[in-house]
Amino acid sequence: MTDAAVRPQKPATAPRTPAGGAPTAAHTADEAHEPRIDIGGVTDLLLGTWAKTRREAREMIKDPVFWQIPGEPMAEHRERILKQLHLLVERGASGRAYPEEYGGGGDNGANLAGFEELVLADPSLQIKSGVQWGLFGSAIHQLGTKPHHDAWLRDAMEMRLPGAFAMTETGHGSDVAAIGTTATYDPATEEFVIHTPFRGAWKDYLGNAAVHGKAATLFAQLITNGVNYGVHCFFVPLRDDEGNFLPGIGGEDDGVKGGLNGIDNGRLHFDRVRIPRFNLLNRYGDVAPDGSYTSAIESPGRRFFTMLGALVQGRVSLDGSATTASALAEYIAITYANQRRQFDSGAGTDEVTLLDYGRHQRRLLPRLAQTYAQYFSHDELLQAFDGVFSGRTDTPEGRENLETLAAALKPLSTWNALDTIQECREACGGQGFLAENRMVDLHHDLDVYVTFEGDNNVLLQLVGKRLLSDYAKRFQGADAAALAKFAAVSTAERVFHGAGLRQLGQSVADFGLTSRSVELGLRADQQHELLAGRVEQMVADVAAALRPAAKLSQDEAAALFNTHQSELLDAARAHGELLQWEAFAEGIKRVEDDGTRQVLVWLRDLFGLTLIERHLAWYLLNGRLSAQRAGSVTRYVDRLCARLRPHAQDLVDAFGFAPEHVRAPIASGAERARQDEARSYYADLTASGEAPVPEKKAAKARAN
Amino acid sequence: MTDAAVRPQKPATAPRTPAGGAPTAAHTADEAHEPRIDIGGVTDLLLGTWAKTRREAREMIKDPVFWQIPGEPMAEHRERILKQLHLLVERGASGRAYPEEYGGGGDNGANLAGFEELVLADPSLQIKSGVQWGLFGSAIHQLGTKPHHDAWLRDAMEMRLPGAFAMTETGHGSDVAAIGTTATYDPATEEFVIHTPFRGAWKDYLGNAAVHGKAATLFAQLITNGVNYGVHCFFVPLRDDEGNFLPGIGGEDDGVKGGLNGIDNGRLHFDRVRIPRFNLLNRYGDVAPDGSYTSAIESPGRRFFTMLGALVQGRVSLDGSATTASALAEYIAITYANQRRQFDSGAGTDEVTLLDYGRHQRRLLPRLAQTYAQYFSHDELLQAFDGVFSGRTDTPEGRENLETLAAALKPLSTWNALDTIQECREACGGQGFLAENRMVDLHHDLDVYVTFEGDNNVLLQLVGKRLLSDYAKRFQGADAAALAKFAAVSTAERVFHGAGLRQLGQSVADFGLTSRSVELGLRADQQHELLAGRVEQMVADVAAALRPAAKLSQDEAAALFNTHQSELLDAARAHGELLQWEAFAEGIKRVEDDGTRQVLVWLRDLFGLTLIERHLAWYLLNGRLSAQRAGSVTRYVDRLCARLRPHAQDLVDAFGFAPEHVRAPIASGAERARQDEARSYYADLTASGEAPVPEKKAAKARAN
Repeated sequence: MTDAAVRPQKPATAPRTPAGGAPTAAHTADEAHEPRIDIGGVTDLLLGTWAKTRREAREMIKDPVFWQIPGEPMAEHRERILKQLHLLVERGASGRAYPEEYGGGGDNGANLAGFEELVLADPSLQIKSGVQWGLFGSAIHQLGTKPHHDAWLRDAMEMRLPGAFAMTETGHGSDVAAIGTTATYDPATEEFVIHTPFRGAWKDYLGNAAVHGKAATLFAQLITNGVNYGVHCFFVPLRDDEGNFLPGIGGEDDGVKGGLNGIDNGRLHFDRVRIPRFNLLNRYGDVAPDGSYTSAIESPGRRFFTMLGALVQGRVSLDGSATTASALAEYIAITYANQRRQFDSGAGTDEVTLLDYGRHQRRLLPRLAQTYAQYFSHDELLQAFDGVFSGRTDTPEGRENLETLAAALKPLSTWNALDTIQECREACGGQGFLAENRMVDLHHDLDVYVTFEGDNNVLLQLVGKRLLSDYAKRFQGADAAALAKFAAVSTAERVFHGAGLRQLGQSVADFGLTSRSVELGLRADQQHELLAGRVEQMVADVAAALRPAAKLSQDEAAALFNTHQSELLDAARAHGELLQWEAFAEGIKRVEDDGTRQVLVWLRDLFGLTLIERHLAWYLLNGRLSAQRAGSVTRYVDRLCARLRPHAQDLVDAFGFAPEHVRAPIASGAERARQDEARSYYADLTASGEAPVPEKKAAKARAN
Repeated sequence: MTDAAVRPQKPATAPRTPAGGAPTAAHTADEAHEPRIDIGGVTDLLLGTWAKTRREAREMIKDPVFWQIPGEPMAEHRERILKQLHLLVERGASGRAYPEEYGGGGDNGANLAGFEELVLADPSLQIKSGVQWGLFGSAIHQLGTKPHHDAWLRDAMEMRLPGAFAMTETGHGSDVAAIGTTATYDPATEEFVIHTPFRGAWKDYLGNAAVHGKAATLFAQLITNGVNYGVHCFFVPLRDDEGNFLPGIGGEDDGVKGGLNGIDNGRLHFDRVRIPRFNLLNRYGDVAPDGSYTSAIESPGRRFFTMLGALVQGRVSLDGSATTASALAEYIAITYANQRRQFDSGAGTDEVTLLDYGRHQRRLLPRLAQTYAQYFSHDELLQAFDGVFSGRTDTPEGRENLETLAAALKPLSTWNALDTIQECREACGGQGFLAENRMVDLHHDLDVYVTFEGDNNVLLQLVGKRLLSDYAKRFQGADAAALAKFAAVSTAERVFHGAGLRQLGQSVADFGLTSRSVELGLRADQQHELLAGRVEQMVADVAAALRPAAKLSQDEAAALFNTHQSELLDAARAHGELLQWEAFAEGIKRVEDDGTRQVLVWLRDLFGLTLIERHLAWYLLNGRLSAQRAGSVTRYVDRLCARLRPHAQDLVDAFGFAPEHVRAPIASGAERARQDEARSYYADLTASGEAPVPEKKAAKARAN
């Protein structure tokens, strides 16, 4: 019999549901004096600012019509996802971000929060929604003006107009500025001519392009009066009502992918396709009938980044959905590890529950701490996004900080998702490899998150360059002595900005019950000092190494930069880790329940210490940790794992997933039922007196 | 147009084929004085002892009938793989290991070498072959005796008898000794009664069980005369000629998996199914008609491990095929990185080839060095396997060493394969996510290699325990002073066995052109000292930590062991890394061509230094590296990457893959053709005088 997929088989083994405020009961008498978390309270904390929308979305996707079907052939999967998008329209889940005058909700933060939860149903649903409403529709909304909104926004929102977002080309992915597609203005007819000059300029990997897209928001070099004004976005109809390409347009199916096969990715090319002048999405740059170009943003570079910046929500939402996917894998693996037994302990008693093994704790619990940190940092990112897009904090600086923050967090959370899901799948052995237990499909689908919407390494390089430029500003005109002081070991203050999360120079203090985590100088404020000091030192080191570049030729300067590229990316990564840690520490401040706070402080310590352990060589080499303190880091991580082990189930229950979100048979309680059945079989056999005698015992009996 | 999948589009961009001995020409005039590798010679070196069989297998799978089809639905994929197994029989590739009297080739090493290459066609083909001939057939061969061979071996070899290997149960994977299925002897009828007492004792995850298997070699607790003699293997018919289960037998399909969906994994259960006494595979233990049990191996433990040890070939072959799969991914990613350009350098010239980026070299080249090391260590493992199974070195010690060696190498190479394939896929961006470019399916299929045929963590624990017991033997009766001396920093000698690879205490010396790699005390012999010293110290540390266990209760001792489980696994991993490094160093000794030796020495150094860099914190904490030497490790790795960059294509060409093995369009030369087309488009445009003027230039012109 296959395990029941959704509803637990026995009430006793059901995941405890959030208890709505009351701390949960102790699991054993011994634990009655131990702190416990208030599961419901933690769920509220994790769901964050837009908890209400997240709960609505989760409620909606309890409907099996939204659930991924393992092994579903690509063609069927694509059609089913298309239907699901229409269902989202019906259920009012498609337009939360659009202006109210077009029937939308005008709430940017809620919109992303709602979409992120769709990853629990099927990542293809989340991403196809993102293509339609977050990219195609959003380009019309963010890059177009009222006439464009009037023309297309409602149709896009209500899925009468499925569209592709035609930015990436086969020959240019991350380097959007260098795309080859041209849009040349013809004043004679007041049209733009869209053209693909060579194979590398085909648009590629576009969701909705292979089958469903009727139009595209297409990025091309805008050329008018013989001048190239750089990349702009155009609305280009693709297919007629029968689904045939319009004249001059051709394309190809990208075929089977490593995951997300519910989305019809494809390639497009254009042979001198003419579109009306009207179709230039002209919020940031316009062409008059006579072909003269105008823009409120004079700098071509700033204009380009402003246009791209309008589309940051893709990166923001990936940070959130990667975190949710990690949480789901951890719920499954930890629930299973709490029920599954393997090998007796050598003490001749019961077999050992997996989560009681030291190695198993080491594999799962630090990753759980990581996911908690990401929940907190993602909510801050989402707030920053909502601030800018609602207009409240929509300044050039606010936008730049938002983009840097998204570029720092998205790489970490998407890589962590792959790492966490893989470890969780391995921790479940053969069960983990079965598609019914979710983790392999999660890994397949999330795989591309690390290279799309900005390749992770390219994003980290953006962050690194921002850190360098902030550093340079800070020390403009400063002499060598100031620099040396900056790089000194003792510096704990943050001297450059936290990309939107923290104010310049503000030190983070008051981390809750630090007295309980005082061990060998690795308390919260010292964790912060170590993490922040590392970022500062790494940036200073790269800056010092790049200093000679000013006197070099461009070629030599590029070569010098290249030599230090890896270090700069590592510094950017360290910066992202610091932001996550700070957000976790901030989040704990909002906790009022003592037991909850204590356990979350341990978990935050585990996160911080795991980061420090990962970079231990750096701390030793740079004299930031003595050998003695460094040696204690690993022991402390081990102790924190053991200390958190009794709370592991509570901590994953606090993710607040219902059985309809989990769906993995091994996390349904079926494993506990199997273990109980096996144990009672052997107990009964022993009681019956008919149990076969082990060979060794029989031999001994014969010998006596 | 989709890229041509197999044959390169332009001869100029074709991967150079092994040049049959002659060193390849310099790529540039500057490089003419640089050492180059002899590509053909390195191919011979990598293909190793059984190169001839590997070449035969590679020739056979050039036939498209064997190639994986991305996205093929599970049912079709399963039937196609079944047909391919029949084709292997036709082409004489199924019986290389079986005795000649049954039509086999009697060559164990060649047999595994040939199967390992099948991973290039489709990993499902490799693993289904492994199930049929390496597990099911091999159990009959290795655990049965002549009457069993006469009865079933030829049918198994020639696929008239497809079979499952029914060892794992839902409730017991790695802990085979604890399986629940019983085989109770009934002297009245001279039959064994096969029975599944509870749900957890269902056989699970068995290839050939869901659809194709007509019989199984089944492991069960042998009970006779009221005594349980432990796990033995039985031949159990499963299905009739119409494919229906025989009476008392039932099962289920495991359904869609994370990969390897060409194999019909399933579950089986038995309700008092009777089989003749004859069907006990009785090489290591027998039951007489009256029910009395006999075995030539008195110790139940040793008997159990002897039986399981007969099946070590699964682990051996996974080490080889994981290495081949890693090599394929590297061939694809490095070839692409050598053609693909992205972002201009800032110097206003051409866009930069990916492999010229410092970070890209860091991502790909250390992993290439790792794969080279694995080729060498795998050939040594295969030789050890062939020695034991041919009878030449078939002693208890030889078997134990072989098993330890396989248990040390299989975890490392299978984890490395996942890491390498993933990094290669990410390094190819969106192209890497398309199934046509191979890497995603390779990752999906290889995923389960890390948990099957012995979960990697469980295998490492076996190795760790062996290291501890060798350590204990070495110091039996030794006093504290001897121990302290052992743990001293200066010790470079190996004081415990190298699990079959190296003789006790033999120091590895003469590492080739070390003069070229002398940098800051990180030469070959120092790399060896650092790697070997780390293993010794880690084992000594764990042993010291476990010393109090002797005075503790079993429960307390188990808890103490558990506290140090992670460290023991880390020590085992370090041991495996050392074995790989030593094999690489040994392999280089066989190289006569100077240029080849020089480049391979750099590559071996990159491997060694990457390992040391990964564990740098350990070296610092344990006083094995000064801060100054440690600080130079990363710089040296960077320099080696830059030094090896011009050799990267040669080094992957030396894997000797034909286009029919690679099949990834992005490694076919299509990318170079696209780049050339785009560059000549822009060159022509500039030459025509009709190129649009960049906005900045136009603005400047206006201002003047």
